[in-house]
Amino acid sequence: MEYLTRIVAFALEEDTALGDITSELTVPAERRVRGTLLAKGDGVISGLSVVREVFRQLDETVHLEPLLHDGDRVTRGDRIGTITGNARSVLKGERVALNFLQRLSGVATATARYVEAVAGTNARIIDTRKTTPGVRLLEKAAVRHGGGHNHRFGLGDGILIKDNHLAAIGGPDRIAAAVRAARHGAPHTLRVEVEVTSLDELEQALAVRPDTILLDNMSPDEMREAVRRTASRALLEASGGITLETVRDVAQTGVNLISVGALTHSSRALDISLELDMSGES
Amino acid sequence: MEYLTRIVAFALEEDTALGDITSELTVPAERRVRGTLLAKGDGVISGLSVVREVFRQLDETVHLEPLLHDGDRVTRGDRIGTITGNARSVLKGERVALNFLQRLSGVATATARYVEAVAGTNARIIDTRKTTPGVRLLEKAAVRHGGGHNHRFGLGDGILIKDNHLAAIGGPDRIAAAVRAARHGAPHTLRVEVEVTSLDELEQALAVRPDTILLDNMSPDEMREAVRRTASRALLEASGGITLETVRDVAQTGVNLISVGALTHSSRALDISLELDMSGES
Amino acid sequence: MEYLTRIVAFALEEDTALGDITSELTVPAERRVRGTLLAKGDGVISGLSVVREVFRQLDETVHLEPLLHDGDRVTRGDRIGTITGNARSVLKGERVALNFLQRLSGVATATARYVEAVAGTNARIIDTRKTTPGVRLLEKAAVRHGGGHNHRFGLGDGILIKDNHLAAIGGPDRIAAAVRAARHGAPHTLRVEVEVTSLDELEQALAVRPDTILLDNMSPDEMREAVRRTASRALLEASGGITLETVRDVAQTGVNLISVGALTHSSRALDISLELDMSGES
Amino acid sequence: MEYLTRIVAFALEEDTALGDITSELTVPAERRVRGTLLAKGDGVISGLSVVREVFRQLDETVHLEPLLHDGDRVTRGDRIGTITGNARSVLKGERVALNFLQRLSGVATATARYVEAVAGTNARIIDTRKTTPGVRLLEKAAVRHGGGHNHRFGLGDGILIKDNHLAAIGGPDRIAAAVRAARHGAPHTLRVEVEVTSLDELEQALAVRPDTILLDNMSPDEMREAVRRTASRALLEASGGITLETVRDVAQTGVNLISVGALTHSSRALDISLELDMSGES
Amino acid sequence: MEYLTRIVAFALEEDTALGDITSELTVPAERRVRGTLLAKGDGVISGLSVVREVFRQLDETVHLEPLLHDGDRVTRGDRIGTITGNARSVLKGERVALNFLQRLSGVATATARYVEAVAGTNARIIDTRKTTPGVRLLEKAAVRHGGGHNHRFGLGDGILIKDNHLAAIGGPDRIAAAVRAARHGAPHTLRVEVEVTSLDELEQALAVRPDTILLDNMSPDEMREAVRRTASRALLEASGGITLETVRDVAQTGVNLISVGALTHSSRALDISLELDMSGES
Amino acid sequence: MEYLTRIVAFALEEDTALGDITSELTVPAERRVRGTLLAKGDGVISGLSVVREVFRQLDETVHLEPLLHDGDRVTRGDRIGTITGNARSVLKGERVALNFLQRLSGVATATARYVEAVAGTNARIIDTRKTTPGVRLLEKAAVRHGGGHNHRFGLGDGILIKDNHLAAIGGPDRIAAAVRAARHGAPHTLRVEVEVTSLDELEQALAVRPDTILLDNMSPDEMREAVRRTASRALLEASGGITLETVRDVAQTGVNLISVGALTHSSRALDISLELDMSGES
Repeated sequence: MEYLTRIVAFALEEDTALGDITSELTVPAERRVRGTLLAKGDGVISGLSVVREVFRQLDETVHLEPLLHDGDRVTRGDRIGTITGNARSVLKGERVALNFLQRLSGVATATARYVEAVAGTNARIIDTRKTTPGVRLLEKAAVRHGGGHNHRFGLGDGILIKDNHLAAIGGPDRIAAAVRAARHGAPHTLRVEVEVTSLDELEQALAVRPDTILLDNMSPDEMREAVRRTASRALLEASGGITLETVRDVAQTGVNLISVGALTHSSRALDISLELDMSGES
Repeated sequence: MEYLTRIVAFALEEDTALGDITSELTVPAERRVRGTLLAKGDGVISGLSVVREVFRQLDETVHLEPLLHDGDRVTRGDRIGTITGNARSVLKGERVALNFLQRLSGVATATARYVEAVAGTNARIIDTRKTTPGVRLLEKAAVRHGGGHNHRFGLGDGILIKDNHLAAIGGPDRIAAAVRAARHGAPHTLRVEVEVTSLDELEQALAVRPDTILLDNMSPDEMREAVRRTASRALLEASGGITLETVRDVAQTGVNLISVGALTHSSRALDISLELDMSGES
Repeated sequence: MEYLTRIVAFALEEDTALGDITSELTVPAERRVRGTLLAKGDGVISGLSVVREVFRQLDETVHLEPLLHDGDRVTRGDRIGTITGNARSVLKGERVALNFLQRLSGVATATARYVEAVAGTNARIIDTRKTTPGVRLLEKAAVRHGGGHNHRFGLGDGILIKDNHLAAIGGPDRIAAAVRAARHGAPHTLRVEVEVTSLDELEQALAVRPDTILLDNMSPDEMREAVRRTASRALLEASGGITLETVRDVAQTGVNLISVGALTHSSRALDISLELDMSGES
Repeated sequence: MEYLTRIVAFALEEDTALGDITSELTVPAERRVRGTLLAKGDGVISGLSVVREVFRQLDETVHLEPLLHDGDRVTRGDRIGTITGNARSVLKGERVALNFLQRLSGVATATARYVEAVAGTNARIIDTRKTTPGVRLLEKAAVRHGGGHNHRFGLGDGILIKDNHLAAIGGPDRIAAAVRAARHGAPHTLRVEVEVTSLDELEQALAVRPDTILLDNMSPDEMREAVRRTASRALLEASGGITLETVRDVAQTGVNLISVGALTHSSRALDISLELDMSGES
Repeated sequence: MEYLTRIVAFALEEDTALGDITSELTVPAERRVRGTLLAKGDGVISGLSVVREVFRQLDETVHLEPLLHDGDRVTRGDRIGTITGNARSVLKGERVALNFLQRLSGVATATARYVEAVAGTNARIIDTRKTTPGVRLLEKAAVRHGGGHNHRFGLGDGILIKDNHLAAIGGPDRIAAAVRAARHGAPHTLRVEVEVTSLDELEQALAVRPDTILLDNMSPDEMREAVRRTASRALLEASGGITLETVRDVAQTGVNLISVGALTHSSRALDISLELDMSGES
Repeated sequence: MEYLTRIVAFALEEDTALGDITSELTVPAERRVRGTLLAKGDGVISGLSVVREVFRQLDETVHLEPLLHDGDRVTRGDRIGTITGNARSVLKGERVALNFLQRLSGVATATARYVEAVAGTNARIIDTRKTTPGVRLLEKAAVRHGGGHNHRFGLGDGILIKDNHLAAIGGPDRIAAAVRAARHGAPHTLRVEVEVTSLDELEQALAVRPDTILLDNMSPDEMREAVRRTASRALLEASGGITLETVRDVAQTGVNLISVGALTHSSRALDISLELDMSGES
């Protein structure tokens, strides 16, 4: 995957463009080490293929032996994999590899918590485009590793008419016109989704049959009413400030999709460390 | 700044490589809009120059008028700036611009809280290399906007001998040898820092006069003793799981530097939105 | 558009990496010229923004004054635009600019002929992924300039289960399983399309309700029967060796979409030249 | 070849930047397939090394076994090679690989037809700079595979004073001055060629001894007279609207070189398909 | 010129990827300065357009006012140009700009000395491919600024059969076969040159009529004899260890071209400095 | 090392973007050769890993067998390594490989001469930022191979307040203010250095305790006095026009560091050639 190559190269360049002077001055060039990736918290792993790519770019002879797969759960103390190879190469790639692994596992972990919270309902937890600049594809994979689904990957692979589109063309009563224009010009491969902020706007939208309707910042009661009125004529997506505390209530309204920006813009990194075995010879 | 060009181009490519089909189908090509960047939470702003670069790359005629500067504080409801220009261009860049601005302001906000917490002590709050892949330089600027200072930018512009370096060459009793080797080979422009995990190791380190000593995961009492024994012969950096709750206690031990990885790996985005004026003509 | 920048830079590099030695040796550095883009055949114009980008990259002071827009028809002898500026810059960019303009206008011209041929029917003429390597987005725009619509832009913004997917999982009787798997995992933003080669396979597909069904290499009679049996439960796309001679018969079967690979893989360039005014002074 | 790497990466990025969602959802990750590249028309093959590069970039374990070489002739039904490997990888690269192979084989096939048409004369069939943006070097190789020769690769590796150069410096009576200037400043490694449109201009050119003279849009009778007057003092290149129907007449006038833009700007793709074996297990 | 953009970006990245911390900490952000480019030795200037590009990339508001042109002579103390603008930007670009200007002016200066040394003879001083990696096109321009001419720009825009080609195919008696093969396959735009090391090999070469013959490491007497035997049937290039002391003797043998690798691989930088005016306000 | 990949790719592109037409036309595709890298002068080798990278990029089957290591001394006639592989690949990479190897060995050789000249003193020979654009990291490694040490790698990994910084803020009496500002804002990992041009300025600097003081263009007597007054409170760097003739006198003044720009901006290439064995079969 060319994308993976590029983001990893970018991250390595940030950290190692001028080499790793500490290792060059203190560790013999031929020394070999073996290290263990250890979970220091509970969560879901994502990013092992990125760890592999980091070392592939730095030194193809460094070997990652994963003991788990992306999507697997860990608890504090679990071993995730081992890394063996030239000491300078392992030390040079350690931070970049962990930066990816911790962040992506944090996203997968957060997603898994939301997915568990809606277990037994019909709602899918989905992500948004509120992702880390440059890391979107990896974060979207992490969402899948956590059991979630993806929304659009960018502005070109889905149609979503938002409040700001409507504002730009005159306001919410342009819903019908906008949906019709989108349907007419869109490739037959894409569905058409439109955002509404009230039940009135929902009615306007339903009249022109979009494939999906995004309910923005509605209360659970409003959502329930929206589900009733829509009567399966469109998919319904709930969005706007939904938290781990409120997500189950939202899911129980009967909406089909719940999008959560915080999965990618505000999740905490999962604590993971690389512990090198003590070694005394080269 | 070439770096800024690249990371912004990367982020735009993720979102807009296939164009913005929704806007192309629903918003007239010549329509113009005016929008306001609004704080929806309290914090410190960072990233306005990135917002400018996003629109410069998309459409040089879009105009950002900042009402604040990076480093300024906001409270919920404050206006941060206005954006005026072609509607399709503004809509196309909105998400990428906000993704940067929210994340970087989140980092600046978190930093400011730590800096406040140690007010009146001699300790500097500093960042680490636990940054978002590809976004390091911007996050390090955000730390400065929040009142913090920077640690190394990468593996080449500072010398820090860590536990894993020592493990690779035989363990903690190699401290003295490692510091001496680093001093001998290093450019005269760089300081030499070494990590210790006990007062014993501190003594070994002090014997060979590193410029800085990192105290890893010590208790405040140990740190206080370390400060006493060091007697200003080296700078002391506290590190390891320090939180907003514990940071003041750490600062009061007399250490010079407190590094906090969470500033960049786990801060929450500051909520900021772009509100377009309703417009009905082109 | 970053994409446009890159493909134009690539094309210029091919032609001008070592400079333009002929012009440097024979044309004074400050000489200015004025030239006219002339149609030397009948067709539809596409690519004027690419011509502008070519000269923007070479020399921002060269001025393109378009007399027509992309999508306009021309007949032999029509003036398309004028180019004014430094003689060496105009000569240096001439061939690359014309290579784009002729090829893209060729695609638009071919598309327009197919669109005219199905006038009055309900069928859309659509393109395929059989495009020129590196030039896809421009060719897809040319199809729109010719009055056609676009199919997928790549493998990520639409779902189309083809004969080779089915072969890979055991053959055509895996249609139902494949459609179900696609529906289950796909983002809610994308439609699901499946290829069938017989009326039997059509029935299998209909049973699992894909959004679109591609009828591969069917005769008009088979297509008509497919339209009857589908009864608007899915969109139908006709594909496979359809020519300007046969396309109207296909459209009259009632299919919704007709995809034509030759629009992009085998269209002839539209003949266009740049005629410089004779000039005798600098 | 770095160039090959880049154009293939560009083409893959167009098609696969967002992954191949259809295969990911419908084909098991470990499934393997075997496919055959089949000619579906008559012609000359070019581009097998590009096919290899496509799969090398996607997945180094996919194996291309060519049964023919670039430059070999095929007739409908001939097997060109086999491709074996992971099913998802083969499906992901199929279209990009075929897009290159079909286009380049189309160029080689067209060239071969022109070369056959002039068999037994002294004329070389040569290409022009009217190539596909980004694909020039591959198309120029395809011309050689078809038995043709190459003209310049770009504006820096040959000197050709054209009508527009002359227009820029005052018109056709500047031929002598331009040729002299070119000869004076040119590296000794490059030949000097000049375009003429009449026998009068030919005489002016001959007086200053260019290495090659391009006869633009002359009739066969004029060309014959040009050959007589030149008397081998320069090479003569015929150019301008030469077709498969007229090329033999042109060749028989005695010119040395016949350049045909249509070889690269308007040749039809050679129809080639990849047929996967049906497979039922992973 | 895309090439110029790239090499300047590369050089700036080396020096400024992490910013310019000294200026940021010591010079106010809005301070403006004016500086003068001063020659501190005698020579020929080359590289002013590179200086302009350096500042264009760093800060478009910095203004270079050249007082001389590339190719102009300077003596110690001459003012070459002035640079005005933001102080931090000028300080940030100073070193990279001077590195280019000093090196290229060094090449131009060395070339001018060789050109003067052969004044009045028929010999051209030409360069080789022994250039600085990444800087070839600029160095070849510097050679022209110094009054020299260029040999090939790379392996693709000229044909030169060297001793190692002959070694690879069996040794010097393969000269005739190699020249014939080159002539047969080469584009008609390129001349064919062959290296010989003795008068015997010269005779073998002359028999097959190459356009140019390179005389490798011959004594002036041998060269004179080579000129006599060649009798203008080919151009003759002298090469191999020619110095400023010996070049006039070589030129007087009657050879047409004298190539000097040291122009680019071993010339001394011309000493040039940037002197800022003292300034006390912003 | 990503950097090495890029500069080598850049250099190869300059030389081989259009292929190697001479070898393609004269050397059979499958011919193999063996060549020897021979020193034709005395010096220190640097750049063998670059030679390896050149051939890795061109053709992974070409094998470099080094007989020496970077940093080893050679005398005229010594064998440095052997290169074995496909003849066309070896010929294609020969010039680029030698261009790197000769230049870098020239830098190492020059450095070694300066290091020898100060043998027995306490002074380190260090380089500057006056390096070849694009080749800095390799030249800095060459300085180490020659026994020297490195100064800053760029403007971001060290703090050096120079005359032009002081000019920009009002002149030399701003030394104290500038040093204090630098100390206050700098990361704790970097040392602070300041340039002085007189003993008066030295006193001003000493008052604010910079880590290092650069003595610009002082006479040996002044330097000796500076050493006396500094009394080890700071490192002292001598700089400005120091030559092989004067360097020992400078070192004997007691300064710690002697920086020599000529190491990288004006050193002569070490003469090295690749001699192919004569070979007669493929």
